[in-house]
Amino acid sequence: MNRIAFDEVHRTLAGVLRKLGFSADRAQESARLFAETTRDGVYTHGINRFPRFVATIQNGSVDPEATPQRVSGFGALERWDGRRGPGNLNAWASMERAMELSRAHGLGCVSLRNTNHWMRGGTYGWQAAEAGLIGICFTNTMPNLPPWGGIEPVLGNNPLIFAVPRASGQVVLDMAMSQFSYGTLESYRKRGQMLPVDGGFDLEGNLTRDPGSIEQSQRPLPVGYWKGSGLSMVLDIVAATLSLGNATHQLPADPLFETGISQVFLAINPAALSDGPQAADLADEIVASVHNCRPADTSKPVRYPGEQTLRTRQENEKLGLPVEPAVWAQILAM
Amino acid sequence: MNRIAFDEVHRTLAGVLRKLGFSADRAQESARLFAETTRDGVYTHGINRFPRFVATIQNGSVDPEATPQRVSGFGALERWDGRRGPGNLNAWASMERAMELSRAHGLGCVSLRNTNHWMRGGTYGWQAAEAGLIGICFTNTMPNLPPWGGIEPVLGNNPLIFAVPRASGQVVLDMAMSQFSYGTLESYRKRGQMLPVDGGFDLEGNLTRDPGSIEQSQRPLPVGYWKGSGLSMVLDIVAATLSLGNATHQLPADPLFETGISQVFLAINPAALSDGPQAADLADEIVASVHNCRPADTSKPVRYPGEQTLRTRQENEKLGLPVEPAVWAQILAM
Repeated sequence: MNRIAFDEVHRTLAGVLRKLGFSADRAQESARLFAETTRDGVYTHGINRFPRFVATIQNGSVDPEATPQRVSGFGALERWDGRRGPGNLNAWASMERAMELSRAHGLGCVSLRNTNHWMRGGTYGWQAAEAGLIGICFTNTMPNLPPWGGIEPVLGNNPLIFAVPRASGQVVLDMAMSQFSYGTLESYRKRGQMLPVDGGFDLEGNLTRDPGSIEQSQRPLPVGYWKGSGLSMVLDIVAATLSLGNATHQLPADPLFETGISQVFLAINPAALSDGPQAADLADEIVASVHNCRPADTSKPVRYPGEQTLRTRQENEKLGLPVEPAVWAQILAM
Repeated sequence: MNRIAFDEVHRTLAGVLRKLGFSADRAQESARLFAETTRDGVYTHGINRFPRFVATIQNGSVDPEATPQRVSGFGALERWDGRRGPGNLNAWASMERAMELSRAHGLGCVSLRNTNHWMRGGTYGWQAAEAGLIGICFTNTMPNLPPWGGIEPVLGNNPLIFAVPRASGQVVLDMAMSQFSYGTLESYRKRGQMLPVDGGFDLEGNLTRDPGSIEQSQRPLPVGYWKGSGLSMVLDIVAATLSLGNATHQLPADPLFETGISQVFLAINPAALSDGPQAADLADEIVASVHNCRPADTSKPVRYPGEQTLRTRQENEKLGLPVEPAVWAQILAM
């Protein structure tokens, strides 16, 4: 693993995007979101994901210069068409618009259809929380997760993000609907490790911690079994029906052609109600109450969602972003 | 188990509430919500919960005639004070207000502080969906769930509800943050059964399916381990900071004095955007795609959240509501 300075990563990725037809500003912005994702420790969706992103531009799934277009709106609720533009730029613009609506109406909701993979969903939670707003967003995905009781992947591994501003560090929950992603299963298998808890079924239909068996059966577990299965379904229904876009069952089950997905961005502006203390200060007290919990293992204090991100961010800002040499060589050759 | 007609249950519960100081209309309404909860198969929070509800009126936790009061508002976002009124009436009124806001602004959000246990959370999802609206709501609770990595119950088992209108039957997900409630653990133990999946830790800190061991350790699992733990935290933060009400750590850990809790009600009005087909029809197609999934056990087809509710409702409407004789005798004596 090499370490490369944030700015160098940012500049390099932006240079590749320029060659692929991105305008200067959009190349900068999209490259920034990729570099920040690695900086924050979400290695699956940052630099390591960039070559696949480039492939989706080259195969026409992503149109570099397409920008979202407003289809309709009523008060604080709007529907946009992503026109198959870059998923991270579309999602950023949509959360920005939801935030704008929340400043005018107390809260705002943008549904977005016809967009592409937003890469790290947490990005748009941090975006809202850094601006002092509560951000909630979710996306559907191609079918890749069996529902509880089913053996075919008809659900999406739809991420759900809840972000809350907090005086001493935002609280950002970024959870997908499978207990472990295929990326996580792969890295456990390569390290020869068992999962810490059951992660899916083996080919015989038994629950297992063996990552390789789950990769074989293609039956990872929804988070909380029947509960995450239901949550995945409702997120898909809300995203598709609000945006009038594709539902999971209408998306091709191929990551290179997973285009035309549906998303929802919700921003709530607590400061619009000025009759009390600031939400961010109250959040501090709640986090403190969780930190005070006696841990099962005294070397591992209880954490809030986003806490590890801040630590990783500081470390990576200081040492440089960790980059796999093979991936970096591939990017430099683009 | 006896079967008693819905109307008789409704009338009987309303009569008890009248004696406890509820006005006629409010007694009818609160009793209806209890009876409907049993009718829909959520037996833990319907008739069986009524004696405890009565106890919280008698001990002063619940003020029968207190109604929610608007504290502040800005556009589609409002903050209300529940004034420790009956939790189900307060919650119903708050969702009703969020629905009203959604008709004026496309979506609406009501935060409610200082309220009481809302009984079945799904009630307020059905309420929104039956009116053609998307309903999302959640509540905090007293501390009763250890966070991931912790051994003290500092989190609430906060239910989260997502409801979507659908032409042939609403989709309503009503999920609490523990994999199994204490009520469920108790009923498995009494039947001498093991849980279908791990439900918590035993006293030695090992994951177990034995309900009795989890009751002993008081360490039920959050849904999805670290994921549900994080989700519980953010729901508490959003509910408490939006309403400026109590957070979980400020609530007494005693069901009889669990008063002054915080809730959020969100309604989205898809029909406000009239440039396409109705959301409810699209939801039908998505549910069909899930129904088509090949089941692991051919006698158990894959279900959507709320599907079982409709079947149970029909059965209980036909046969009468199932009532435990001892509980019913207790209610008749009130």
